[in-house]
Amino acid sequence: MKNSKYIVVVGCGRLGSLLANRLSRDGNSVVVIDRVETSLDDLSPDFSGFRINGDATHMAVLKAAKLKNADVLIATTPEDNVNLMVAQVAQKVFRVPHVLARVFDPSREEIYAQLGIDTICPTSLAAGIFLEAVANGGTRQNGELP
Amino acid sequence: MKNSKYIVVVGCGRLGSLLANRLSRDGNSVVVIDRVETSLDDLSPDFSGFRINGDATHMAVLKAAKLKNADVLIATTPEDNVNLMVAQVAQKVFRVPHVLARVFDPSREEIYAQLGIDTICPTSLAAGIFLEAVANGGTRQNGELP
Repeated sequence: MKNSKYIVVVGCGRLGSLLANRLSRDGNSVVVIDRVETSLDDLSPDFSGFRINGDATHMAVLKAAKLKNADVLIATTPEDNVNLMVAQVAQKVFRVPHVLARVFDPSREEIYAQLGIDTICPTSLAAGIFLEAVANGGTRQNGELP
Repeated sequence: MKNSKYIVVVGCGRLGSLLANRLSRDGNSVVVIDRVETSLDDLSPDFSGFRINGDATHMAVLKAAKLKNADVLIATTPEDNVNLMVAQVAQKVFRVPHVLARVFDPSREEIYAQLGIDTICPTSLAAGIFLEAVANGGTRQNGELP
């Protein structure tokens, strides 16, 4: 990663903590928000960003995260509705230039796309790879990207 | 898909039902197992395979699914431990030639790989794509596969 960015990660579960640790290690300024304080314990000891224990659907929490300065927001909570709301607020209110959200329900991907939010649907991703594996008799290496 | 296969899908959640519907539509013989009967309602009206309401960690259920005849088993329950157990039984006891499992915890991928089970970790997949998107300022199209 060439340029350091200011990145806000909402949700510190498996995906959120993995992203936050990696993005911080790569030299970005990272803020992680989770409403469950113990979730923030999953951050690596050498995570050099900020931790905020709060509900990202509250404006005060997003302001505390200085969201208006962010280059990127990534919504990774386990709730599609929360991710959609936070992503929209980041985009429309805080004018974050790059907004990404995880969505579990494949049928919601179209709604997100119409709202101009970049989404990742792990269900669709996994399904595509499983179908490919069934057809070809094997998978690509775990997690390997093209 | 050129050849019709006998495929057992364990777990009929978002991923399992999506796979079962698609694999059935593509002309495969599909059996779906879920311990929650209402989960099987997610199957498409034109799903032409068999539905089994039962716990796939019980041998009787796997026998009822005629697992020994299966070309492929795909374990997609929400529980990594269940997927690991079912995948191992399918491989070691029923000699299913191709066993695939979803695993949510990226740290378990290595264990599965050592047991010779093909795994898909949606967390790792999503993380890889998010990191790529942050670096490049955009995502590939949702769910598009290489």
